[in-house]
Amino acid sequence: MTRQAQVHRLAMAGPSDVAPIARLIEAGEIDPARIVAVLGKTEGNGCVNDFTRGYAVQSLRAMLAEHLPAEALARLPMVMSGGTEGGLSPHWIVLSETDGSAPGADLALAFAATITRALTPDEIGRSAQVALVRAGVEEAMAKAGITRAEDVHFVQIKCPLLTAERTLAVGGHVVTTSMLKSMGLSRGASALGVGQALGEIGTLTDADIGVNFDLWSARASASPGIELMACEIVVMGQSAAWSGPLRIAHGVMQDAIDAPSVAALLGLAAPGAPLQSAPDRAIALLAKAEASASGLIRGARHTMLEDSDLSSTRHARGFVGGLLAGLIGHTELFVSGGAEHQGPDGGGPVALIYSRSPEVAPA
Amino acid sequence: MTRQAQVHRLAMAGPSDVAPIARLIEAGEIDPARIVAVLGKTEGNGCVNDFTRGYAVQSLRAMLAEHLPAEALARLPMVMSGGTEGGLSPHWIVLSETDGSAPGADLALAFAATITRALTPDEIGRSAQVALVRAGVEEAMAKAGITRAEDVHFVQIKCPLLTAERTLAVGGHVVTTSMLKSMGLSRGASALGVGQALGEIGTLTDADIGVNFDLWSARASASPGIELMACEIVVMGQSAAWSGPLRIAHGVMQDAIDAPSVAALLGLAAPGAPLQSAPDRAIALLAKAEASASGLIRGARHTMLEDSDLSSTRHARGFVGGLLAGLIGHTELFVSGGAEHQGPDGGGPVALIYSRSPEVAPA
Amino acid sequence: MTRQAQVHRLAMAGPSDVAPIARLIEAGEIDPARIVAVLGKTEGNGCVNDFTRGYAVQSLRAMLAEHLPAEALARLPMVMSGGTEGGLSPHWIVLSETDGSAPGADLALAFAATITRALTPDEIGRSAQVALVRAGVEEAMAKAGITRAEDVHFVQIKCPLLTAERTLAVGGHVVTTSMLKSMGLSRGASALGVGQALGEIGTLTDADIGVNFDLWSARASASPGIELMACEIVVMGQSAAWSGPLRIAHGVMQDAIDAPSVAALLGLAAPGAPLQSAPDRAIALLAKAEASASGLIRGARHTMLEDSDLSSTRHARGFVGGLLAGLIGHTELFVSGGAEHQGPDGGGPVALIYSRSPEVAPA
Amino acid sequence: MTRQAQVHRLAMAGPSDVAPIARLIEAGEIDPARIVAVLGKTEGNGCVNDFTRGYAVQSLRAMLAEHLPAEALARLPMVMSGGTEGGLSPHWIVLSETDGSAPGADLALAFAATITRALTPDEIGRSAQVALVRAGVEEAMAKAGITRAEDVHFVQIKCPLLTAERTLAVGGHVVTTSMLKSMGLSRGASALGVGQALGEIGTLTDADIGVNFDLWSARASASPGIELMACEIVVMGQSAAWSGPLRIAHGVMQDAIDAPSVAALLGLAAPGAPLQSAPDRAIALLAKAEASASGLIRGARHTMLEDSDLSSTRHARGFVGGLLAGLIGHTELFVSGGAEHQGPDGGGPVALIYSRSPEVAPA
Repeated sequence: MTRQAQVHRLAMAGPSDVAPIARLIEAGEIDPARIVAVLGKTEGNGCVNDFTRGYAVQSLRAMLAEHLPAEALARLPMVMSGGTEGGLSPHWIVLSETDGSAPGADLALAFAATITRALTPDEIGRSAQVALVRAGVEEAMAKAGITRAEDVHFVQIKCPLLTAERTLAVGGHVVTTSMLKSMGLSRGASALGVGQALGEIGTLTDADIGVNFDLWSARASASPGIELMACEIVVMGQSAAWSGPLRIAHGVMQDAIDAPSVAALLGLAAPGAPLQSAPDRAIALLAKAEASASGLIRGARHTMLEDSDLSSTRHARGFVGGLLAGLIGHTELFVSGGAEHQGPDGGGPVALIYSRSPEVAPA
Repeated sequence: MTRQAQVHRLAMAGPSDVAPIARLIEAGEIDPARIVAVLGKTEGNGCVNDFTRGYAVQSLRAMLAEHLPAEALARLPMVMSGGTEGGLSPHWIVLSETDGSAPGADLALAFAATITRALTPDEIGRSAQVALVRAGVEEAMAKAGITRAEDVHFVQIKCPLLTAERTLAVGGHVVTTSMLKSMGLSRGASALGVGQALGEIGTLTDADIGVNFDLWSARASASPGIELMACEIVVMGQSAAWSGPLRIAHGVMQDAIDAPSVAALLGLAAPGAPLQSAPDRAIALLAKAEASASGLIRGARHTMLEDSDLSSTRHARGFVGGLLAGLIGHTELFVSGGAEHQGPDGGGPVALIYSRSPEVAPA
Repeated sequence: MTRQAQVHRLAMAGPSDVAPIARLIEAGEIDPARIVAVLGKTEGNGCVNDFTRGYAVQSLRAMLAEHLPAEALARLPMVMSGGTEGGLSPHWIVLSETDGSAPGADLALAFAATITRALTPDEIGRSAQVALVRAGVEEAMAKAGITRAEDVHFVQIKCPLLTAERTLAVGGHVVTTSMLKSMGLSRGASALGVGQALGEIGTLTDADIGVNFDLWSARASASPGIELMACEIVVMGQSAAWSGPLRIAHGVMQDAIDAPSVAALLGLAAPGAPLQSAPDRAIALLAKAEASASGLIRGARHTMLEDSDLSSTRHARGFVGGLLAGLIGHTELFVSGGAEHQGPDGGGPVALIYSRSPEVAPA
Repeated sequence: MTRQAQVHRLAMAGPSDVAPIARLIEAGEIDPARIVAVLGKTEGNGCVNDFTRGYAVQSLRAMLAEHLPAEALARLPMVMSGGTEGGLSPHWIVLSETDGSAPGADLALAFAATITRALTPDEIGRSAQVALVRAGVEEAMAKAGITRAEDVHFVQIKCPLLTAERTLAVGGHVVTTSMLKSMGLSRGASALGVGQALGEIGTLTDADIGVNFDLWSARASASPGIELMACEIVVMGQSAAWSGPLRIAHGVMQDAIDAPSVAALLGLAAPGAPLQSAPDRAIALLAKAEASASGLIRGARHTMLEDSDLSSTRHARGFVGGLLAGLIGHTELFVSGGAEHQGPDGGGPVALIYSRSPEVAPA
């Protein structure tokens, strides 16, 4: 027998609106004990003082506590990404398992999660984090029954950041004293760990992290959270040990306006069809967005990095979000910012979870 | 003999960077006496306290004063639209005339500008403004040699707004005491005047302005400016009295993610070609963007109207800008915000100036 | 025997940091059953999309649920005010009762809370809300044993606002369809109700609310919250039925730079002493701040109302907060924005809870 | 015969409103040939993309070009500081000379300006800039007839910053590749140069700049501008070679709420008088404001450094501006942000230009 992946994409009326998930649990459509991870796109600024992430996690945890023992709850990854700029729409993505049919000819969507040990503050943004994430990805692949690196299509990581208190706790032996910078370095180290696990990147040193952007993973997506010291890792890919109609694929946007790469990816869900022809089969789209460090997009100046009123990450999410929504035809897209070592400068990985059969629509 | 339209799209390094235009004048490529209008997309917030518009106009005026008599300069429309959110790139669009060839079989791009008399503050946002704009559009059509309303594809208007001082000057008999609201009502009244001139809209009363959004023009684009009391009107269309390779067409985005309508329009420049295949032939794209008043995009909630940190107009420009840039393949797009009576709620008009012949690239 | 008022002002490390209150409950210093109200100054933007208020309330409620029956918890006012602009510091203010000594010669600090019935959406911002608040203030005065209106020095109200859903529920018969505007009208109606209860304001009609700013209360402070439909009212004053060292007084800032009025108030805590001489005795300062609608402060232009990047309420809180902190010598000040009918245009009420005896410092 | 200092503080209706200065020139009250410097507080965000500074300078330059030869105009310092947060009011401060009376017993206000040679990009933020500023201050002191360092009370500097282009021009051999960081380092190096010239600071190395904040000047105020590569230096102090009623003094705010230091300074203009008693005699107040790097003000947390929606410099200007306006009684205050090596962490220098005789009010 196989496992079967379920992906529920659910509208969120606000950071504390966990009712849509609760309803599916009560209806028996989601078995809380078999939830692998919950992702959420919340409506804060996605930067340092975005409290919508913590608020959503607190709300989720309170609701799930009625269904899960504390120990299981503590191990469940809840990856909130702030920022629904432009027309993006706040939503949950619940990844869960159910029993599958006998193994088929195809590989089907498969996923699993793991949590590394807690990092010490001096490990954040350094090789130690890279190594821990690498091992974590390998462990999660094994749990998901994904045997080949090429069958991994997206790895979502929630990683720690540095605060003044944490810096003090290790006598200041940290990679940076800037909270904001530590977010970027933690994202970058996480992505490099993914790249190593997937064979995209070879050996590296501390000096490469946050500097040598020639090293990048096409399948990593990392978001920092102040509330944890470990890295929570969710590996998504395809495996013969799973069945059902769901599939996953990925592409890489080479820059912020690389619509052709995304269109090619969406073409998997609806081969030969025009724009927006399969919004129902394109069940979840996960992408990274960022302002190119060069200050240019195809030679034309952008102003994202000089805007002191509005963070470049907010600019980038809204802009790339508009492109993606235009191609796919809906706005519940998991676009997150800060793409250090996650795709090329100014671009980023994009993954699509889609249904092979037209009759299967998202919940 | 005919006239021939020239459209130069030029990168702007900052609001005072008029050097690219000056160079073309010095090189003889633009005859300053035959400039019809200058549009600019500047990098301010596009809202009340956006001083990049005035700064750009002051810079432009100082440069052109070396080439034009004061009287001509005073009559030249300079339409600055603030806001290059996301990856949008600040740029100038210079519309000028040159001598054309003998009339051909096709209609070619044609444009002309006019300026209404100064409005009194109590006329702003009311039927009086609608009537003045309507007459102005008709006058500009005649100047451009555009004989049929259906041959008009875009009307760009710069219109006045109310300030405390102006309100006082008419004893408070104004449509609103809110500066921000007056911007929306002035845009709306301008758009309704365009719609009447083009036969899209019938009779209306003051009570329709800013209220009855069933009334809209598919070809109007209005931006308010604090520095004027008249309406500056630039009509763009096609005419047999003009020749050359340039053409114009328009479409309407039904909502903020209506990529198919835009793709259809771009298909005129490159029939049957895939995405981004004709960035060079798509010479200028002019569009309006706004957050839908319903709070929804295809049933999914957006957060633009509840974001007290970031104006909904900034959200909308970046989001729609991303979609447009993805389809066209470059980021120098004239996307402006605030689309009252300009296209349906949450959508807006889009016009494309393109070159019929592949060999003609933008300057 | 009398009651005795306790006021604990406690630093908050983030919206979910209820630990300082929990510690005092565990230490027996606060009896949870005798908490009258909890105020909080949280670090969001204080505007529509400020989720720090809801997050703080959810955190507080979860912690107090371990100590209080659900019914008591439901009746406990939790008034969160977002916005710690400038150097303001997030903090809790816990108002609780304990047993007092025999009645003394002086009146002492006294407070009580009440909650009105739920308003219907069409009552918000109208006379019905004024009347309900008026009755609620009278009820809370009776509970607090405050017999004369002149002995009331501050009334903090949390009031409802309109949303699209609520507007729909009453068929659109609401005072405004703008969520932001409904916040102002609800604050204003609440303040007018306080003013009537305290004899500051006579009869009025719907047309006065949000319009006739000659009507104002010197002792009202209202903040809207999306999570309630009733008005929560906390009356603070002085009563012979209470004892202990705490006192309260109020003043009115006539404009945003009216330091002399505040200095006079602080002089009660430290008569004849220089600036900042009694930060320990000035236990809690509660103030309203707003940008003057005239656009002027003593004849000089301010830019708060034209700043499209930053809400005028954020400007005003930071600016007035700087003045207050400079006079008092610390930054844990409950400064809230939006002062419709709460003090004169551009100014606002200020209340000081202070200790009569120098030896009594805040917790 | 002596020189006499004139200081005109003039309201500015917008960045291009130079009319108030033009009127005084036309009225003969200001001799354009004897203007020493023009300072301006403009209403932008005071950060990277604040175009109100350039707009104001362009406007000023165009107006003064009618009165001054190009060479003189090029040498005239125009120091625009963006940011009028809270109730601060945009204004000009024009420093000019006129003929004085015979030397008196007192020292009187004296000022002079100088401009260093253009820096190369690799000198910005390094010891070379420190040395150039030091020499410039000494030169300006000599021009102003100020013979002792202790008679200098404020040195306002406009200094260059790094851009991508400038960085490229020196092969990347710059102190930082971040534009924003280069602003801080340029301010810091400028302040250290002032400190050395005034004997407040001894020798130092590149490693001290932007790092060793124990080194600071009590009289330096630096603001970077993208439009220049030299440092423009305006020294203000007192000299026996000048006469008239104007005087200058300075203090240092030890933190952001240090009202007593400011009150002591204001007491010079109105000895023994209460708050706000001499707004007319307090002719110009110049101050620096910043968020303390410790994240604390007197032990209480501030949120300025974690606010990703609003720059800490904007927070700090509004907050300190409120305190200063409350003490002095008007809002035309030259408060600028970014106080590296300018006063202690979180505090900053404050200078007051005041009139000795009560009858002399500002223009």
